[in-house]
Amino acid sequence: MILIDGKKVSADIKAELKIEIEELRLKTGKVPGLVVIIVGDNPASEVYVRNKHKSCVEVGINSIVVEMPAETTQEQLLEQVKYFNENPDFHGILVQLPLPKQINEDVIIRAIDPIKDVDGFHPTTVGEMVTGNPTYVSCTPAGVVELLARYDIDPAGKHVVIVGRSNIVGKPAALLLMQKKKFANAIVTVCHSAAKDISVYTKQADILVAAMGVPGFIKKEMVKEGVVVIDVGTNRIYDPTTKSGTRLVGDVDFEGVSQVASYITPVPGGVGPMTIAMLLKNTVKAFKEHGM
Amino acid sequence: MILIDGKKVSADIKAELKIEIEELRLKTGKVPGLVVIIVGDNPASEVYVRNKHKSCVEVGINSIVVEMPAETTQEQLLEQVKYFNENPDFHGILVQLPLPKQINEDVIIRAIDPIKDVDGFHPTTVGEMVTGNPTYVSCTPAGVVELLARYDIDPAGKHVVIVGRSNIVGKPAALLLMQKKKFANAIVTVCHSAAKDISVYTKQADILVAAMGVPGFIKKEMVKEGVVVIDVGTNRIYDPTTKSGTRLVGDVDFEGVSQVASYITPVPGGVGPMTIAMLLKNTVKAFKEHGM
Repeated sequence: MILIDGKKVSADIKAELKIEIEELRLKTGKVPGLVVIIVGDNPASEVYVRNKHKSCVEVGINSIVVEMPAETTQEQLLEQVKYFNENPDFHGILVQLPLPKQINEDVIIRAIDPIKDVDGFHPTTVGEMVTGNPTYVSCTPAGVVELLARYDIDPAGKHVVIVGRSNIVGKPAALLLMQKKKFANAIVTVCHSAAKDISVYTKQADILVAAMGVPGFIKKEMVKEGVVVIDVGTNRIYDPTTKSGTRLVGDVDFEGVSQVASYITPVPGGVGPMTIAMLLKNTVKAFKEHGM
Repeated sequence: MILIDGKKVSADIKAELKIEIEELRLKTGKVPGLVVIIVGDNPASEVYVRNKHKSCVEVGINSIVVEMPAETTQEQLLEQVKYFNENPDFHGILVQLPLPKQINEDVIIRAIDPIKDVDGFHPTTVGEMVTGNPTYVSCTPAGVVELLARYDIDPAGKHVVIVGRSNIVGKPAALLLMQKKKFANAIVTVCHSAAKDISVYTKQADILVAAMGVPGFIKKEMVKEGVVVIDVGTNRIYDPTTKSGTRLVGDVDFEGVSQVASYITPVPGGVGPMTIAMLLKNTVKAFKEHGM
């Protein structure tokens, strides 16, 4: 069994980006810019935003964080987005979700200029991804594909079974992996809670992507020998033996499934670190395509 | 075995729309308007456009066909699209594909205002469909779902196997059928030419959607007893016994598969007639949402 080390891959990508950004700076005198807008004081969001900012600084992306109070109106947030849509120093705009109740997330996401939509959530960005046109792929599904590629696991002709059909992971991962492209071209099944016996599907998986948000749901008996397992789950569960009283676990019962899998991602340290790496990659892409 | 009669369903939908449009006319003094733009003289396209126009007239949609010469430039076509984007009398714009070589289809599709994109091909429209937001669903996959609904075949919890991954049928049909909605909520597998043995997948289908464009590809041995078969294929094959010398066949070997299927669509007369019905429906939707 080989452990897919997302932390290492993420560090590799960052090292590559750092070199690329330095080259771009020498050539153009400019660097990619990312603005992250955070509204309110959700502690989890604050951690995410801090990590994104830190990673940007590491690789040489000009990153700013705009902190807006919890009582910000939709109109005020729209104005900020509009300001950064027009600001040529920032090539990527990310509005950290979730947003406070008075703000409609759909409206905000649609207000971001698709050419700066490095999070990949704008319908236009999603549509371009469906039809296979080069664009920003949202960071988590892009990270899943990148992990496979970096471990030279080619999904072509294989049966990829995705558990979960979220707009953020399940659906885009399915679309990416079925396309007639390199490190794709898979037969893809998307299964979910409506299945009478979900193991009918999971047992068929050559590559299993678990993304339904149920801690330890995928058990050893539900997969076949030699399966490649990508665990997208990030569930915080109660654990009195830890300092914080909680622990991060995936959607896969790692202890059991790792006994039969050929490759498996841990949680934490698997898909998680890839998300930021792909955000950085998208930001550099935005700069190269629209900022130079 | 029950034959799914697309011709009848399509006629039912048209009859319903006719009543609805008349009611809208009485209420608002206006009717939905559709412009179809055709460039060049592809005989198949001309037939399609004529049929669309005829159907519009039947139900009371104000339809015009703009015919542009084969040597039309991209700029000229863009101007036409722009004109109709701004014309309040037309709520739907359809540019008949394929276009002559000097015109980039992607550019034209992206030029249509998404609120008038009744064909459902604009990336924004596709993206809204992926995320499950109400919008225009492109006509053929919408027709597939509508046929199931009209025959009260609920895909919820069933295994839908789609053969073919085109942007026009396979991918959108998969996305529609996996959503947590009425007449959807299915486990969906998309298989295609990269599968070593495609019958491994087709045999599992409770509902099989054949959309890969290979005449008579799906044989009796490839499906299970009781399968529901939706044949999206429209292949014109050589047949000297007919007047025209050709004949329209689907992707399913109808004679064989109909012996084991519980429901099956014929070709012609199955999904085909639904495409125009869904176009009319989208046009009426566009009128109700943006034209009144």
